[in-house]
Amino acid sequence: MDETKFTPISNIGEFELINKITSSTKINNKSTIMGVGDDAAILEFDKKVHRLLSTDMLVEGVHFDCAYSPLKHVGYKAVVSNVSDICAMNGRATHILISVAIPNKYSVELITSLYEGIHLACKNYKIDLIGGDTTASPSVLTIGVTVLGVADKKSIVCRSGANPTDLLITTGDLGAAYLGLQILEREKMIFEKSNQAQPLLGEYTYILERQLKPEPRVDIIEWLKEKNIIPTSMIDVSDGLSSEALHLARSSSVGIKIFEDRIPVSHHTNDTAKELGINPSMCALHGGEDYELLFTLPIKYHKQLAGVSDLHVIGHVTAQKNIVELVKESGEVINLTKDGWDSFIKHNQKHI
Amino acid sequence: MDETKFTPISNIGEFELINKITSSTKINNKSTIMGVGDDAAILEFDKKVHRLLSTDMLVEGVHFDCAYSPLKHVGYKAVVSNVSDICAMNGRATHILISVAIPNKYSVELITSLYEGIHLACKNYKIDLIGGDTTASPSVLTIGVTVLGVADKKSIVCRSGANPTDLLITTGDLGAAYLGLQILEREKMIFEKSNQAQPLLGEYTYILERQLKPEPRVDIIEWLKEKNIIPTSMIDVSDGLSSEALHLARSSSVGIKIFEDRIPVSHHTNDTAKELGINPSMCALHGGEDYELLFTLPIKYHKQLAGVSDLHVIGHVTAQKNIVELVKESGEVINLTKDGWDSFIKHNQKHI
Repeated sequence: MDETKFTPISNIGEFELINKITSSTKINNKSTIMGVGDDAAILEFDKKVHRLLSTDMLVEGVHFDCAYSPLKHVGYKAVVSNVSDICAMNGRATHILISVAIPNKYSVELITSLYEGIHLACKNYKIDLIGGDTTASPSVLTIGVTVLGVADKKSIVCRSGANPTDLLITTGDLGAAYLGLQILEREKMIFEKSNQAQPLLGEYTYILERQLKPEPRVDIIEWLKEKNIIPTSMIDVSDGLSSEALHLARSSSVGIKIFEDRIPVSHHTNDTAKELGINPSMCALHGGEDYELLFTLPIKYHKQLAGVSDLHVIGHVTAQKNIVELVKESGEVINLTKDGWDSFIKHNQKHI
Repeated sequence: MDETKFTPISNIGEFELINKITSSTKINNKSTIMGVGDDAAILEFDKKVHRLLSTDMLVEGVHFDCAYSPLKHVGYKAVVSNVSDICAMNGRATHILISVAIPNKYSVELITSLYEGIHLACKNYKIDLIGGDTTASPSVLTIGVTVLGVADKKSIVCRSGANPTDLLITTGDLGAAYLGLQILEREKMIFEKSNQAQPLLGEYTYILERQLKPEPRVDIIEWLKEKNIIPTSMIDVSDGLSSEALHLARSSSVGIKIFEDRIPVSHHTNDTAKELGINPSMCALHGGEDYELLFTLPIKYHKQLAGVSDLHVIGHVTAQKNIVELVKESGEVINLTKDGWDSFIKHNQKHI
C-alpha cells in the first residue's frame, strides 16, 4: 500500500472502506459459516445451534454525548444495541465482553455508573458479562462491545434471503430516537448559552426514552419462535429505515418498495417533528437508532400479521435488483439511495 | 452511585477498578464456565472442547505511537497480543473480530496498511477475521480486538492451579520489547529536535523486532501438546514478569520465588540495557510486551525440561500465599509487589 497517498476516508465512506479492508479476508476454519457482512458472524460448533458474534465500537462525541446522556444510560444502550444485532439474526444474546478506554476526566464514580447500566441490561436480557479490558485514553471515552449469541440452525435469518413479492415488515415505530437526539442537542445549546441547569423535558419523555434507553425487540424474536414463523431476511434499524432496506435489497439481490403512509410513526414523534419543522417520514427513513426489526415474510403470512399491533407491513419486495423505492403519500415514487448515518461523512452532525 | 464525588482512577489503578466494576457480575447461562479474571473467558458448548474468548483495546498514545510504529506492525501486533492470551490458556486462536475508531488524519491508505498487518497475522496463525466495526474518532486511533479460541477440556490451563514446589518456567527471553520501546522513544525525541529523517537503528534490530513485531508462543503450546504436558498454571508476559508472577500467585493462593540469575535475557537486551544505564533484570521484571509464556509445572518435569533450549526454569512455587520474591544475584531477597504496567497510573510513560 502506498502510504504517501492521502485519500480521506470521507471520500469513500464507511461501507466502501469496509469493502476495501475485508475483501482480502480468507477463511481457514471450517466452523466459520459466515464472517463479515451481516449483523453478526455465524459459527458452527454444535449440531443443532449456530453461535453468533458481533462487535461494535462506541465513541464519545460520535455515538454519545456525556453532556446529556447519563453514563448509566450509555452503558445500558451499549449492551442493548449489540443485543439488537443478535435479534436481527433471529438469535438470542448469551454472553458479552466490554472494553473501555477512559480519559482522566472520568472518575471511578462515573465509570461505576456506566457499569451499573451495563449490569442492568445484562440482567434484563439474561446475558453474562464474561470479559473486558480497561485502559487509559488520552482523549474521549470509547466503549468496545462484543456480543455472543445463539440461534437454532434452522431458524437463523440473514439479510440475504428476501424474495420478490415478500412482505416488508417493521416492528414498533420509527423516527423517535432521532428526534430525541435533536431535542437533547437543542437543550444542550440552550444550556450552554444560558447556563440554566434543569431544562423542562417532560413533554418529550417518549422520544427521549427512545434515544436514551432503547430496548431490543427480544419479544418479537420470541413471538416469531412461538408462531413458528421464520423471516426470509432481517436487519435491525440502527442507521435508518432507508439504509437498512438498502442492505436487505443488496444482500438479497432484490428491490424493495416502501409506502410512506404505512411507516409507523408515534404521535409523539409527529408532534415534535411538527414543532421542529421536520418531515416525520424523513426521521424514520434517515434517523436511525430505533433498534426496531425490519424483516421480510412470504405473502402468505399477510392475514396472520393483521391482528398483531406491533408489526406493520410497510411495503414489499420487488424484482428490481438493489432498487429501494419510496411511494410517497402523493403517489410520487422516489429512489432511496442514501446509506443513512455514516460516522465518517456526517461525524457528530446527525442531521437529515 | 454518587456521581458528585470524584475519585481519580489513578488513585486506585486498573486492577482495583476491574474489581469494582465486575464484583456485581452475575452468571445466567450454564455455558459460562469462567467469566472475568483470567486471560480469557471459558465457555462450554461442546462435549470435548471449551471455547475461549478474550478482548483488548489498543489506544494510540497509550499502547502504540504512530510516529515510530508502522501501521502494518500495529495491526499485526493487535492480533498477536490477543492470540497470546489464548495461548496462555493452553488453547488455539480460531476467530477474531476487530473494530477501529479512526481520526480524520488517517487516510484510506494508512488504514489499508493497518489491515495488511491484521490479515498477515491472521494468515500466519490460521485465524478467521469474522467481524468488526469501523467508525470515526474525534481524536486518536483506537483498535478493539476480540479473539475466540478453542482448547481441549482436559488440557485447558488457568492462572489458578499452581501448587507449592511446582517449577516456574518462562519461554524465550524477557525485557527486549521494553528496551525496543526506549530506543524508539529516544529516536523520536532526537528526530523531533533535529528533524533528521532516517535514524540508524541497525544495531538494535533484535530488540526493535521484539517491540514492533512480537510473535505469540504457539510453538510452545504445540510442544506441550506433543509431549502431553499440561502446566498447572499459565499466563502470558504482557505487563512484565513481576506482574504476571503476582497474578499466578494470587489466583493460585501460593507464593513464587524467582532467581534473578535464571531470568533469560538476550545479549542484545544486555548490551542496550548497559548503554542506557538500566538493569536488564528490571526490564524483564517490569517492562512487559514480551508475549512469552510464564507457567508452572510439577517438579517431576525438571529433567524433561533440561534439554529444551527455549524453556527456562527461573524459580519455583512456595506456600507463602500471594508473596512473590526475587532472589538477587547477591543472595538478597526482595518482595515484588508492583503490578507492572498500569495505563491509568503510568499513562504513556512506560518507564521503570
